[in-house]
Order: sequence, then structure tokens, then C-alpha cells
Amino acid sequence: MPEFLTLLPPDEARALLLSHLSGPLADSASADSLQAFGRVLASDVSAPHPLPEFPRSSVDGYAVRASDTFGASESLPGYLTLVGEIPMGAPADMSLAAGQCALIHTGGMLPSNADAVVMLEYTQTSQVSKNLGGLPATEIEISRAVAVGENVIQVGEDVRAGQIVLPRGTSIREAEVGGLMALGIVSVLVVRKPRVGLISSGDEIVEPESAAGLGRVRDINAYTLSALITRGGGEPVRYGIVRDDFSALQAMTQKALAECDAVVITAGSSASTRDMTADVIRTLGAPGVLVHGINTRPGKPTILGAADGKAVIGLPGNPVSALVNGFLFVQPVVEKLLGVLPRPRPTVMARLTLNLASQAGREDWWPVKLIANRQPPTANYDAELIFGKSNLIFTLAAADGLLRIPSDATGLSAGEIVEVVLL
Amino acid sequence: MPEFLTLLPPDEARALLLSHLSGPLADSASADSLQAFGRVLASDVSAPHPLPEFPRSSVDGYAVRASDTFGASESLPGYLTLVGEIPMGAPADMSLAAGQCALIHTGGMLPSNADAVVMLEYTQTSQVSKNLGGLPATEIEISRAVAVGENVIQVGEDVRAGQIVLPRGTSIREAEVGGLMALGIVSVLVVRKPRVGLISSGDEIVEPESAAGLGRVRDINAYTLSALITRGGGEPVRYGIVRDDFSALQAMTQKALAECDAVVITAGSSASTRDMTADVIRTLGAPGVLVHGINTRPGKPTILGAADGKAVIGLPGNPVSALVNGFLFVQPVVEKLLGVLPRPRPTVMARLTLNLASQAGREDWWPVKLIANRQPPTANYDAELIFGKSNLIFTLAAADGLLRIPSDATGLSAGEIVEVVLL
Repeated sequence: MPEFLTLLPPDEARALLLSHLSGPLADSASADSLQAFGRVLASDVSAPHPLPEFPRSSVDGYAVRASDTFGASESLPGYLTLVGEIPMGAPADMSLAAGQCALIHTGGMLPSNADAVVMLEYTQTSQVSKNLGGLPATEIEISRAVAVGENVIQVGEDVRAGQIVLPRGTSIREAEVGGLMALGIVSVLVVRKPRVGLISSGDEIVEPESAAGLGRVRDINAYTLSALITRGGGEPVRYGIVRDDFSALQAMTQKALAECDAVVITAGSSASTRDMTADVIRTLGAPGVLVHGINTRPGKPTILGAADGKAVIGLPGNPVSALVNGFLFVQPVVEKLLGVLPRPRPTVMARLTLNLASQAGREDWWPVKLIANRQPPTANYDAELIFGKSNLIFTLAAADGLLRIPSDATGLSAGEIVEVVLL
Repeated sequence: MPEFLTLLPPDEARALLLSHLSGPLADSASADSLQAFGRVLASDVSAPHPLPEFPRSSVDGYAVRASDTFGASESLPGYLTLVGEIPMGAPADMSLAAGQCALIHTGGMLPSNADAVVMLEYTQTSQVSKNLGGLPATEIEISRAVAVGENVIQVGEDVRAGQIVLPRGTSIREAEVGGLMALGIVSVLVVRKPRVGLISSGDEIVEPESAAGLGRVRDINAYTLSALITRGGGEPVRYGIVRDDFSALQAMTQKALAECDAVVITAGSSASTRDMTADVIRTLGAPGVLVHGINTRPGKPTILGAADGKAVIGLPGNPVSALVNGFLFVQPVVEKLLGVLPRPRPTVMARLTLNLASQAGREDWWPVKLIANRQPPTANYDAELIFGKSNLIFTLAAADGLLRIPSDATGLSAGEIVEVVLL
């Protein structure tokens, strides 16, 4: 039993692994801006023109010269001459002289010389005769003064021309898609999806479509990790199941490492198979095994290594351990390869329903079910622990999230508000 | 200005809309269990056999009859005769007699008559000569007693045969993929993706690939909503841009309604275009317009309607309003059509950095940026408000989430811990 002499805290272990990886992938591909949803920008995007490109009204009302409305009030309204209606979808090809106004709709372009809009609510229309070549003119009664710029969206108020609006590394969500379309940028460069090779090792493992039968179990980890990698923006590459044989595991890992940006081996859980994984990682390139044993539960036997700038991770074979440690170590590797700018991790605050002991120095991750209650704002949920050995995949299928017990805690008390990372 | 006489609270408005929709879609399709990641189960999945199918060791050690270890301790160890090693990946075709044990690896199958496993840590091996036909035998020293079932995963401990393991409506995450594979279920029935028709209306709107120019703006909403619908598990169907013309809008909406499960119209923001959307919805089928005006900001002009069991939603044209109200009203429609079992919404608790006024009775949604700080566990982030008119899509691109100010609040104070819904 030579292993686990020193168990690293998970944060330290992760930082050490990431420090040995080459930076973000340099490869990129062009993608339609809508298809790029969920991908990561490979280069800065800057605005080819200001947004908006012309001064727009933010309300329905009358475009005016603000100075013409000064002093106007309900008791002492001002009067402006209506000279037209701004068409939607076309330039406002009119200009206001002093004392004039133009009907404008939300989103319409301000005519030149106009610098504010009076909302419809503060106006009244009155048809009056005036000596304009005998034609009847319309006067608009203004019962509220406006300041310069009021109810107007200025040119460049959203973004200025040339401004970097979305930096490299931005993950493209709904709003980014919208911003790109607003600027007429219908395709962007996105980072290639990092390829993560997945190898399942163990004499007892068979493919999911096989009959399992006595002594054998179906491969779970290659599939849960495929889904995890997909969700994180990577591309899983499955290399199938390798027997518990050093040469076979070494050959398959070398092949995967040559073809992928990172490799994950889920080994059997026995000490001998874990040792074999570590021995294989030592042969692949420098620096080899970085961490063998992490002070976390589940996941103590996790092995973190790197070979020539690529991560090689050995996860325990227990499906709960493999998936939880996939979240802890594989996902950050994918994120580093993508060069994605960090975003807050989705969590829920919940109230723990029972006392929970923990070993000081060890970080625990517990599957929990969240039961809605009504105690806003600090806890809308009760967190109920799901007990079960880390071999039982359905304990995770029943869970809404994972409760982290920090390594400096010796336990948590019933009623405490805890943070649950959503699964 | 006939509208907005009564503004419904958003929760009430949403409930009213959902109550008028037909239930979840009845159509389903078969999907490979890994490809089904992110989809929703169309029927209950039950276990074809127990999991595990055979009693397994959860540690490396010796399979024993627990009664043979009773009383064993470090000061007074017990001794058992080693009769073999359990192979991995094959049935354990041996049986233990009294006083015997077998070497077993983690995940290995217990031999018959064995009912517990002693961890390797509590054993020592000693080669001793015994009168077994003159052959040397190996004795194992046991320094710790085990109870029946200790270090054993029992048949059916994860799931029992016939148990419904994943009910209809389950959204398939990593753990569900794993559970399906563990049971050898390599394909499942998933609910068809709800088709949501998207119509953009407005004389000033042009396609994103067009030069915008004076007076015109590019369509944003059809694309942000496409992304939103995709994320929520639906299939967006874009019907392009329709001029501000009743008959044209009516014809396009009828076509979309016939081809889709729900329709969303983003209208111009002026009162007249909003009224036109409502008028069109009134002609499509019963009950027509359900809600015209919601007590929320942004999103007051949102129109919720239903025609013969299908949702027809009119969203404001302002891109921020459209997207925020897409989260509030379109996503729940997609979820209802999928019949997906509810999961907690991803949020982050954060500390507000300034005082914020709000109008009593109105629910406000503010884009916020989350700045990491170190005040666990109640607030790992500061929430900084992003100010900007609801026309400015890049205010949302700069946001990590939306801060909700409930309608019964008249404001929030700096330093308060608030819940931010992640974007």
C-alpha cells in the first residue's frame, strides 16, 4: 500500500494540474452566430458601427427641441406645431424649426434638430386654423417640459464603434447571440471543442449493450463523463474498455493522448488497478503523475497527471466517485482548454435537515435532494442528504445537487444554510 | 391608450397562461441513451434486473463468513485459511467452508457462503505448513471482526428489479445517462422537442445580415429567443419579419400556429403595434388574449394568449424586455409541453452593492454583474447593477444574471443578500 502518503486538498490539486497544461487551444472555426450558442469566442469581437446607429425614441410621443418645452406644465402648457410623422424603418428626412414637433413612435429615428421626445401621455392634439397659406395646421399641447436627451437613445449608447464588445473567451449565451445579430455579425470564430479521450479499464467491465451477468458490470463512467464533457463544451472520444494489463492500458492511453487534448482513465477501484494507472501515466511524458491521492470524499484515489502539456487523469471506477471528480477535475481542464472566462457556478442555498459529521481536513461532497419550502430569501429549499455507497449511480440520479463540506469544517448542523452545486 | 387597465402579477399571469395549454406533448421518439442527454423521458423507465446483480465487495480484502471473525482484534487476532482469489469479471465459483477466506478485489463477486469482507488493512499473510496432504497452505491473520454485510454491496442495493428508476418527465443529466447504461438500457423514448414559432414584427426591423442604416434595426429577438428555446429543450422555428400590417401578421401567425406547438410574436414597442398583436391573437381561437399587461419591469406590455390549447405570446420589441420575458413566460411554456419534472433554478446569492428603489406592486428584474468576493457561505459574490434602457442588448451581454425584486418590496438596501438567477 505505497499510495496516499500525502493527500492534497482538492483546490490545491486542481491548481497544480492546471498549471502544467498548455494554454487554451489555438484552433478555431467559423460558426454561424446562432449555431455558436454555447461555444466560446476565439477572438475579440468589436463593434463595426455604433449601436444604435441613429438617435431613437424610447417612447411613443412627439420629437421636439427641448428648449421649446421649457416651462411647460399642466397649468401652463406650451404649444408646438405638428409638421409630420416619422416613418418607421426609414430615415427621418425632416428637420425641426423652432416651435415645431413631429409625431414619433417607439424606436423611430429623431429628425435633425430634435433633441428630446415628449411622451404621448403629456400631450393633447388640437386642430387649429393658421395663416400658413390658408391650410389648417395641427397644434400639439405640451403639459410637461423635457430635458435635452430625454426619452432618446443616443447614438452609441449601447456600444460605441470600434469598442470590444465581446472579448475572447466569452461563452456565447442568448444575450451574446443577440448582441452579435444587432451588429450584423452573423458569423464568429469559436474555439475548437477540446477532445477528451475516455478509457475504461477493468476486467469486470463490459459494454452497456452486453448482458452483464455474474461478476461483470456495465461501463457507466465513459458515458457519464461523455455527457459531462459535452455539457462543458468539449468533445468526448471513447476508446472503449481495456483489460487490466499494463501494456494494453499504456498502448491505448498513448493512442488517446496522441489524438486528444486530454485523457481520462477510469480504472477499477482496487489498489492494484489504481497503481497500474499511475504507472502508465509515469511513462507518457513529463512531468507524469502530479497528484496521487486527494483529500476528498468521494474521490480519494484520484490521480492527476500531465504529459507534455496535456492532462491525464485517473478517476476511481466507482461511478459516483468518477462523476463527482469529473466535475472537480475534468470540467476545469475543458474550461482551461477552451480559455473560457469564468462565470459563477450555478448553486442553490438550502437548509440542511440533519446534522452531518465530517473528517477535518477532508472535503466531502454529498448528493442531496432539494425540497422546496418557503423561507426566502436565504433558503427556498431544504437539502436532504442521499445516503448510499459511492458505487450506487442512482443515488446521483436521485440528487438535485452536491453539497460541499469544506475541509476546514468538522461537520454541519441541522438548520444551517448550505450551498448546493446543482447537477 | 386602452391597454394596461389591469396589470397582472407575473406569477399569476404565468399560471393563467399555463392553465389554458394542452398538457405535455404525446409524441415521442427513440434516442440512444447518450444522445438523450438533455432530453426528457417520454415514459417511465424501470429496472429490468436488480443493481448490482450479485453481491460485490466494496473494498480490497478477504471475503469471509462474518461469524468466523467474531472476537478478532489486534491483541487476539483470528486465523483463516486462504482458499483462493476471486477473479474479476467472472462468477465466483467457489464456496467458503468454516474457517476459510478468499482474496477479493474491490467490485469482485462474493463467493457463496461469504457474507462480509475484511479490509486488507486489517489482515496479514503468513505462510504456514499444514497437514493438507503435505501441501503448504496460507493463513490470513484477521485483526478486526466484521459484521454480516460489512463492506458488501448487496444485490439490489442500488435498484431493485422492476423498480421505476426514472419516471416520465425526468430530464436526462449525466447521472441518468449512467443509470441507464448500468441497466443495459441503451435507448429510451424521449418527448419530441416542442416547436415554438417565432415571428418578428415591425417596419423598422431587418434581417441581421442586412445593412441596418438610418431608421432601421436588425432583428435580435428571433435569435435570442431561438437560443433560449434551444436551451430549454425546444425547437425554434423562425418565420422571419412581418410588416406592421394586420392581415400579414394574422396570416403568418395562423401559419405558425398550425405548424408549431406555440407561437411567440415580438412586436414593435409602440402602442399601435402592440394593439395589433393583441387584435391578431383575438382572431386565432378561444380563449384569445388572456393577459394584456403584466406588472413587471421590463415587460409591462407583454401579451399572453392561448388558441385552442396552444400558447400565443406577444413580447415587447425591446430586446432586453423580450429576453427577460422569454425567461419568464416562454421557457415555462416549453417546460409544460415537455412535461419535465421541475428542478431548482440555478441561482447565486450575492450582496447588493447599492440601494435600489422599486415600485410597490411591481416585480423588477435587473441585470447584474457578479463580482467574486470571499464571504462564504451566504454570499460569495457582490451583485453590481447594470443600468441601461431596455433597448440595450449589451447590458444583458454584460450581465451574469438577473436580480428579482419581488412585487411586495419597495426596494432593496445596499448590503442585503439577494438571489440572482443566472443567465
